Amino acid sequence: MSGHLAIVGLGPGDARYLTAEAVEVLAVAQALYGYGPYLDRVPIRPGQSRHASDNREERARAAAALVHAAQGARVAVVSGGDPGVFAMAAAICEEIESGAESWRALDITVVPGITAMLAVAARIGAPLGHDFCALSLSDNLKPWELIERRLDAAAGAGFVLALYNPVSRARPWQFAAAIDRLRRHLPPSTPVVFGRAVGRPDEQVSVVTLDATDATQADMATLVIVGSRETRVIERPGGSPLVYTSRAVAEVSA
Amino acid sequence: MSGHLAIVGLGPGDARYLTAEAVEVLAVAQALYGYGPYLDRVPIRPGQSRHASDNREERARAAAALVHAAQGARVAVVSGGDPGVFAMAAAICEEIESGAESWRALDITVVPGITAMLAVAARIGAPLGHDFCALSLSDNLKPWELIERRLDAAAGAGFVLALYNPVSRARPWQFAAAIDRLRRHLPPSTPVVFGRAVGRPDEQVSVVTLDATDATQADMATLVIVGSRETRVIERPGGSPLVYTSRAVAEVSA
Repeated sequence: MSGHLAIVGLGPGDARYLTAEAVEVLAVAQALYGYGPYLDRVPIRPGQSRHASDNREERARAAAALVHAAQGARVAVVSGGDPGVFAMAAAICEEIESGAESWRALDITVVPGITAMLAVAARIGAPLGHDFCALSLSDNLKPWELIERRLDAAAGAGFVLALYNPVSRARPWQFAAAIDRLRRHLPPSTPVVFGRAVGRPDEQVSVVTLDATDATQADMATLVIVGSRETRVIERPGGSPLVYTSRAVAEVSA
Repeated sequence: MSGHLAIVGLGPGDARYLTAEAVEVLAVAQALYGYGPYLDRVPIRPGQSRHASDNREERARAAAALVHAAQGARVAVVSGGDPGVFAMAAAICEEIESGAESWRALDITVVPGITAMLAVAARIGAPLGHDFCALSLSDNLKPWELIERRLDAAAGAGFVLALYNPVSRARPWQFAAAIDRLRRHLPPSTPVVFGRAVGRPDEQVSVVTLDATDATQADMATLVIVGSRETRVIERPGGSPLVYTSRAVAEVSA
């Protein structure tokens, strides 16, 4: 058994976020699998085959890559951001668990990457500077009631929230409902950061307050960070504001 | 005002985790500030001054770097992992908020990095594959009761937990107390991942169950991931197990 499967994080949409390890692993792969726009970010190499698939075909892509690797090839599956955060690594593990026995004998490498919340946070200061949660608002694979329960638990206990997959064509109302839910727990002045296409020419990062948050500002490519009671905004003359979450918390009851 | 301050994430302890942006920003800095062992990871460059300080002197280091940058220099503060996650970016924002007016006019750049939980998760599969929280167990700047409340809220609502700063010489009992607390919410079979020194020659990554978790296994350099009810272990013949958290959740009540 010589098959090798690497699951590689490309970070947000700019080569500057690539790690040295990702560059190296992509260079030696014989076959690349991934969502088309992610594959397009990897330079073409002679002799390397490319297998693009749709964003919604994660399981089929995972299975195809596993079959290919089990034939003895060196295969890389590319993922935006970090492959372990709401991305391909869990999808591939799911396939391995339920799939052919030979897949368990494959040499598997996960190459971490800069996930969206870290890139957006870096662009605006340090909003994830203290305890935080990462939560997907997609109710494709979990009930909406569970998402509400997690929003309540996280905001109620003072975690900052990084919201992935806030909205999609098939899920138009969920983000507005989540913001309404968070308003029960957090003051109107709580900072909310919208980050979109970080590192790309059309990058947009902005900060508003929770009471002024307009849910139509988010789309599929947006990552939203909702602050806690310890999140502050520093205005800067002639510059964009800094948003950060203080490491110090004075009181338990808030 | 031409001063520039970059806060640069080095990732875990190996150059393979450095991003292209981090390499570039470190190359053009005139002065480097940081905790000694992190600074030691940056190659020496002629003409670049180096200012090492102790791990506990974050505020003093932040202030010294800001003073230096405000004199018009190009200064970089290095941070292990990601500077925005329990690291230097929030400390520097705190200093800017309470410090000299001129500091607000500085050009500030945060360069994200691979934070410990992403590196540890990548080494073992995809334990952060679904909703998760990052929580520091240090009660230096927040009361222990708040940490307990956050452990209860996160585990009770089904988040996976990434625990930073589990233990230190001055905080010997906190990690054991946290594990005891989590046992109230989670089944004995819940996977717990210990990751230490990822990417370094003495790297150790292991998985145990919650009931078999020995709190003395963690030290200052350990990152601990405590799974949820959706976290699974895939045993592999002749290989290390894969740990991942399924993206699908069937029921709300668990």
